[in-house]
Amino acid sequence: MAKKNTMTSAAQSARSRRKVKARKVVQMVYSFGKSKTEGDASMRPLLGGKGANLADMTSIGLPVPAGFTITTETCAEYFNSGRKLPAAMMDQVHQGVKRLEKESGKEFGSSTNPLLVSVRSGAAVSMPGMMNTILNLGLNDETVAGLAERTGNERFAFDAYRRLINMYGDVVMEVPHHVFEAEFDKIKTKEGVREDNDVSIQGLKQLCVAYEAVFKKAAGIDFPQDPLQQLELAIEAVFKSWMIDKAVTYRRIEGISGLAGTAVNVQAMVFGNMGEDSGTGVAFTRNPATGQNQFFGEFLVNAQGEDVVAGIRTPHPVEKMHLWKADNYKTIGREIKATLLEIKDILERHYTDVQDIEFTIEQGTFYILQTRTGKRTSAAAVKIACDMVKEGLIDEKTAIMRVPAAGLTQLLLPSFDPRAKLDCELLAIGLPASPGAATGNLAFSAEEAVKRTLAGEKVLLVRKETSPEDVDGMHHAAGILTSTGGMTSHAAVVARGWGKCCVAGASEVEIDEIAHTMTVQGKTYNARDTISIDGSTGEVFAGEMATVTPKLSSEFKKLIGWADKVRTLAVRTNADSPEDAKRARAFGAEGIGLCRTEHMFFEGERILAMREMILARDLESRQAALAKLLPFQRDDFVGIFTAMNGLPVTVRLLDPPLHEFLPHGGRSQRDLGELLGVGTKAIATRVNQLKEMNPMLGHRGCRLSITYPEILVMQVTAITEAAIRCLSGKRRVKAMPEIMIPLVGTYRELEVLRQLTIETIAAVKKAKKFTGKLNIPVGTMIEIPRAALTADEVAAHADFFSFGTNDLTQMTFGFSRDDINSFLPDYLGQDLLPEDPFESLDVSGVGQLVETAVQKGRSVKPGLSCGICGEHGGDPASIDFCHKVGLDYVSCSPFRVPIARLAAAQSAL
Amino acid sequence: MAKKNTMTSAAQSARSRRKVKARKVVQMVYSFGKSKTEGDASMRPLLGGKGANLADMTSIGLPVPAGFTITTETCAEYFNSGRKLPAAMMDQVHQGVKRLEKESGKEFGSSTNPLLVSVRSGAAVSMPGMMNTILNLGLNDETVAGLAERTGNERFAFDAYRRLINMYGDVVMEVPHHVFEAEFDKIKTKEGVREDNDVSIQGLKQLCVAYEAVFKKAAGIDFPQDPLQQLELAIEAVFKSWMIDKAVTYRRIEGISGLAGTAVNVQAMVFGNMGEDSGTGVAFTRNPATGQNQFFGEFLVNAQGEDVVAGIRTPHPVEKMHLWKADNYKTIGREIKATLLEIKDILERHYTDVQDIEFTIEQGTFYILQTRTGKRTSAAAVKIACDMVKEGLIDEKTAIMRVPAAGLTQLLLPSFDPRAKLDCELLAIGLPASPGAATGNLAFSAEEAVKRTLAGEKVLLVRKETSPEDVDGMHHAAGILTSTGGMTSHAAVVARGWGKCCVAGASEVEIDEIAHTMTVQGKTYNARDTISIDGSTGEVFAGEMATVTPKLSSEFKKLIGWADKVRTLAVRTNADSPEDAKRARAFGAEGIGLCRTEHMFFEGERILAMREMILARDLESRQAALAKLLPFQRDDFVGIFTAMNGLPVTVRLLDPPLHEFLPHGGRSQRDLGELLGVGTKAIATRVNQLKEMNPMLGHRGCRLSITYPEILVMQVTAITEAAIRCLSGKRRVKAMPEIMIPLVGTYRELEVLRQLTIETIAAVKKAKKFTGKLNIPVGTMIEIPRAALTADEVAAHADFFSFGTNDLTQMTFGFSRDDINSFLPDYLGQDLLPEDPFESLDVSGVGQLVETAVQKGRSVKPGLSCGICGEHGGDPASIDFCHKVGLDYVSCSPFRVPIARLAAAQSAL
Repeated sequence: MAKKNTMTSAAQSARSRRKVKARKVVQMVYSFGKSKTEGDASMRPLLGGKGANLADMTSIGLPVPAGFTITTETCAEYFNSGRKLPAAMMDQVHQGVKRLEKESGKEFGSSTNPLLVSVRSGAAVSMPGMMNTILNLGLNDETVAGLAERTGNERFAFDAYRRLINMYGDVVMEVPHHVFEAEFDKIKTKEGVREDNDVSIQGLKQLCVAYEAVFKKAAGIDFPQDPLQQLELAIEAVFKSWMIDKAVTYRRIEGISGLAGTAVNVQAMVFGNMGEDSGTGVAFTRNPATGQNQFFGEFLVNAQGEDVVAGIRTPHPVEKMHLWKADNYKTIGREIKATLLEIKDILERHYTDVQDIEFTIEQGTFYILQTRTGKRTSAAAVKIACDMVKEGLIDEKTAIMRVPAAGLTQLLLPSFDPRAKLDCELLAIGLPASPGAATGNLAFSAEEAVKRTLAGEKVLLVRKETSPEDVDGMHHAAGILTSTGGMTSHAAVVARGWGKCCVAGASEVEIDEIAHTMTVQGKTYNARDTISIDGSTGEVFAGEMATVTPKLSSEFKKLIGWADKVRTLAVRTNADSPEDAKRARAFGAEGIGLCRTEHMFFEGERILAMREMILARDLESRQAALAKLLPFQRDDFVGIFTAMNGLPVTVRLLDPPLHEFLPHGGRSQRDLGELLGVGTKAIATRVNQLKEMNPMLGHRGCRLSITYPEILVMQVTAITEAAIRCLSGKRRVKAMPEIMIPLVGTYRELEVLRQLTIETIAAVKKAKKFTGKLNIPVGTMIEIPRAALTADEVAAHADFFSFGTNDLTQMTFGFSRDDINSFLPDYLGQDLLPEDPFESLDVSGVGQLVETAVQKGRSVKPGLSCGICGEHGGDPASIDFCHKVGLDYVSCSPFRVPIARLAAAQSAL
Repeated sequence: MAKKNTMTSAAQSARSRRKVKARKVVQMVYSFGKSKTEGDASMRPLLGGKGANLADMTSIGLPVPAGFTITTETCAEYFNSGRKLPAAMMDQVHQGVKRLEKESGKEFGSSTNPLLVSVRSGAAVSMPGMMNTILNLGLNDETVAGLAERTGNERFAFDAYRRLINMYGDVVMEVPHHVFEAEFDKIKTKEGVREDNDVSIQGLKQLCVAYEAVFKKAAGIDFPQDPLQQLELAIEAVFKSWMIDKAVTYRRIEGISGLAGTAVNVQAMVFGNMGEDSGTGVAFTRNPATGQNQFFGEFLVNAQGEDVVAGIRTPHPVEKMHLWKADNYKTIGREIKATLLEIKDILERHYTDVQDIEFTIEQGTFYILQTRTGKRTSAAAVKIACDMVKEGLIDEKTAIMRVPAAGLTQLLLPSFDPRAKLDCELLAIGLPASPGAATGNLAFSAEEAVKRTLAGEKVLLVRKETSPEDVDGMHHAAGILTSTGGMTSHAAVVARGWGKCCVAGASEVEIDEIAHTMTVQGKTYNARDTISIDGSTGEVFAGEMATVTPKLSSEFKKLIGWADKVRTLAVRTNADSPEDAKRARAFGAEGIGLCRTEHMFFEGERILAMREMILARDLESRQAALAKLLPFQRDDFVGIFTAMNGLPVTVRLLDPPLHEFLPHGGRSQRDLGELLGVGTKAIATRVNQLKEMNPMLGHRGCRLSITYPEILVMQVTAITEAAIRCLSGKRRVKAMPEIMIPLVGTYRELEVLRQLTIETIAAVKKAKKFTGKLNIPVGTMIEIPRAALTADEVAAHADFFSFGTNDLTQMTFGFSRDDINSFLPDYLGQDLLPEDPFESLDVSGVGQLVETAVQKGRSVKPGLSCGICGEHGGDPASIDFCHKVGLDYVSCSPFRVPIARLAAAQSAL
């Protein structure tokens, strides 16, 4: 439905644009208000999310202050023409202002009844706090007096004026905030008061004069007195803010692209700071942390909206709004609360999703200023989605799409062990702003958090409060702790959006951002100290804390169940032991996509036999050592096949270079020499011989089987014997092994080794006199670029492909994963890579090879089974890619299986 | 011309085949002779080279014994139908035999006047000695008597019969040769003679009986007495030999594919062993070693052709043929020699190329048995091609195509220093069978030569004589030495074809192939001893010998001049010093395609400053160290730009990991620590820090410039200052630097570094107040698979692409060149790779990436300059690929420049 609307409207708007162009005038301004509303909810690309919603809300009769929206395309045009405002724009703005004057009965620039407006940014995608906002525009030295007279509130008028000058200087003229702060401090000192609100009216008047003076000094021009000029410069400033670093960074981190620019919303001002019968607040229609269907919000009396969001004053919860009394002791809260709850229901029914709203009460009159889809934790997303299906608001498919798969990590990642908490020193309790648990050393600035994280350290970002300047640091830190601000403060909102652990407003904590210290309970902590924070409880602990594995909610299971119905990608797991296999199966794994055999060689007696094999001087003694390894391998496989009874298990043959199995210390070499009776020197020599300059590109994978086919023979024998034992045993375990030959670069390698594998399987069946059904597919891992490039040749000899995207990424980029840390931080920091390519699949390079290989492989073998077994198999963005290129399954670590199931469903939808 | 003929004839033969098929009988037998000749020279694919030529020679009136050819398609049909002879074949063979009987007046199987035939293989491409041959077929216990009577030469008749039984047993029945040898020895012992020819007639008769007995014992059947049965089995044996290992190996090594099979040539026998007025020989129409226009051949009196080729008896040179006297003291040689010279001229005019012919004189009558294009050394190929242009036989383009570019290495590779020879012990002088110089340890069997060469040893294959079984060993050995056989022996012919150094018939050398020793001048040498052989002089020396660089012949220069006129690929060189640059320019290099800068940092003071830079703790001290390096770099570039005055010089910025520049020994670390005043420990720590698991995939190439942009700035400054100095200097040297940024994997790397490079160039120009013309292109090396895959993105920021196919091969295959030796021998030995991919470009994998990159690069930047600077740039097969994918130039090591020029011309043609 939504999609159809969008398309229709896009077509409509394109048509109307064409029509308008024919008349040589593009419509750049869209009005909303009682008398005329031109936009609707489907016009987000053109009007931005805020503008479209304001028009939409106006249409459904909500009390939205009138205004107009300047389109995102006007912003694009501004940048396309070298930062010049389109010629006709201000004419259209003027028309918009005239309509506003008409609706409000006020006049822009009037010294008796002045119209004031807000100017806000609003792109098609919500970017909280990223863009600049100007309030109270329209005030000047004359109109301020008119406002004072008209409202009978001189304090309010001059406070509004000083706010305008400050904000305008800050946003439009880049006057540093501190020059205004200094003037404010002077006045406060002079009057002997501490709080802003305690300054006298006279003080505020003086402050306005002082602000104008510092404005002129810093900006080089007088503060503009013409309201239309104010407006023009303000609109341009909003446009400019689209390209400032923090906005660009946010879009990069969030992967937002393809937007034209930001829209500008000009709206008649309403004031929450016009006395004790005024107020402002923000609210979520449901609890964004837990998802409970419980209205959730905060408000401040006699305040502007920015005060709530910035976290400067601690707000009241909306549950207590009915207790709000005005100056005249009249209880005004009850009525307002009722309005609010009514609007809440209208909004949820209208948008069928949780809404994050801003509202203002001006002298007892309720206004809604903004609504947008509410950010929420993953746990909340799951619960809300399930609840809304139950309530009939959305269907199952919509529910699936409502839960960002990547965020589910927070539900699946360990939390603190409650028992461990008993042993740790509880330092403070703040607000549980974003659930999860995090431990790290203290970082006191965003920059520091980025730097130290990239250098491999685990840090928590610790700030009094966060601001949009901090987003990069918040993104990198393991968690966030603030000492001021509420559940809807910047830190809380952003952290929840990312599923990052956050404790906000922990007021016992005193933070010195200059000295880089944090003092709590009389003790001072610095950058070398470690603390632990619990975002689900708000607790802050000293030191590092142990964690426990989480349990899945029944909603989560229900949602994943719906996902299973729609996804087409199978989800397997990477598991090397019966325990891992069982765990993954419990998470819903449909088989093992990667069972590495090398880990099986490290324990006890095995490693000794393995080393004996490696050190063997001839085939005979190598075979003797392999014969010792055979029973261990067989038993391992019996265990794994049993755990995966009835599901496929893809076993990768020995992959790492032999050197990895040898002892490197002098002492361990001596011990081994004695044990094997060959002397230390022989061991040292062989270890040295096997050393490689670039082991990643050396004698490993199938290359080992080419030079030592007897290793392959032993492993295939173990797999086949284990399968036969399972199938013939009392329990009739249905073993379904698949044999995967790693590191193939040319079809000839696979041709030769596949032949040997098939012969070995046949020989084992014959020796064991097994006549039952046992078909073991033999396939290969595609992890060498050449194998992908020549996949048509390779496919002729493969029963399946499995993409080993870890190695494929290493070779496609020429990056050694072991060595990348010496330059990856610079690459991410300088924006040379969008992300670590080992975390999320590089679609344009590595992905191109995967796609080529799938196409070429299936061109000669239609329906060839293709999967992915690199670590990317658990990353939702990568899973989406896998779905698009037509893979049959992804395989990932056990705890990521549920994420993969959901992500696969989302891709299918 | 030739091509047109082929096509017309192919079409004709296809048409005639269709016609024949319509009548349901495929023509399998094509006759040649006075009465009827069905084939011609253009029918090589169907009749094989030998059969087509026999038909062709018959047509132009040369004295060729009559015969017929069974087609290659019959051979293919034989294998396709599971090794069954096509039903109708023997009928057609019978028809052919009948015509032969008619032409010769003899009768197949007659006891009074028997027709004897030879059966020879002959594929479309010449494979000397690879296929089996049977002579004297048609003899049996009865016809042998008839032959004796008819020729009046009983010795001849029984000698022919014993040869048939022997050869037939060997070739058709796989009876080991030694069982016949043993019988011969018995007779010789009994008669007390040493030479075969000294055995009495009676003895030969007994020998035939004895041969029949051992034949029956070994083969399990009587020696077939029915001549037609003999013929059928012999034809089948020739077909079978197409698929024996040595033939398959030869085709693999030579890269021969796409042939249907071998043809079989059945031809009336003529005898060179019918007395002193009979003889046989082989000749080249020009000297195949030097190319001089000098008839060059050898003959034996009273012998069969095999005796010459096998090198058992030492033949006479044809120059002395006029001295040949028959039994009756009549000089018959003068007339025969005249015939031979006349035929030589006819053949060269007809085939417009050097011919390698076999001839036989039967009782004074001259017959030509075979002609084929003569194999020759590269020096000879060059001279012959040039001479033939002068003689008007061929044009320049044909001349260019006549010289295999790969073989030119032998003209450009060092030969022994004549002065060094004075200091070495001359052991023997053999025949200068194939020019060049080689040094190596002794290997006494082909197998050993293969094994030890693959293990990295340099060996000479030392054999009494070589046989087709030895080709693999000959291919691998550095050179070949034989103690018997002439200039046309197997060893000599094969070695010349490959351009491999060979000394043949060094009779002073006694070789014990069992004991694996060689004795000469009373001293015994074994596998551990080194000798040196000069294939241009036939000299054999003890020990290893120094070499000198060769001079190019005037013909060579002329040929390369012609090549320059037709080639479209430019040829640059890889050079890092003014000396290399000068040498390459003398060889015709048209610029430097790869100037590595890292080598410049290793000498004297530079390495110290380099280490200081690497060990620097901060930007400031790193810049201080770089400032010391700047003048060195600048002076190096001035030298190189001057040497390449007016030609482009592509400078690659620093590429290797910094670790390579640091001292690794404890002592050298201590020295450095003292010198830099930082202590040994600091050095050791930093060396350790910089160590990488996989340096090939680590912090190197442009990644260094990303983390340390100041290194790039220093290098670009040095390049720009050097260029300005050249351009502004008195000599007005036209410096044309190009800056190449290595190891780019994403376009962003290039975008950022290109910007810095351009800014640095501009800054230097400004600082030097340079206002002249200096345009420095900034491009990149494509050596990371991802760069090739995303070449469209990369090209937007590159002025040129240069393919670094060494690294590209490493990453595309996942092969570390440093570590490949642990498995490459197995890969080549088991035919998993056709050749070392670092020697000849892997077209299907690495080549695919190169092609993709060129296409994508030019899709966004038409005409983008593309070159190759990996070592493949000097390999003719790779050059051909480069031409086909549309590169602009290849860059190779200086001495390969002429090869590349010729190869480029051949590709263009």
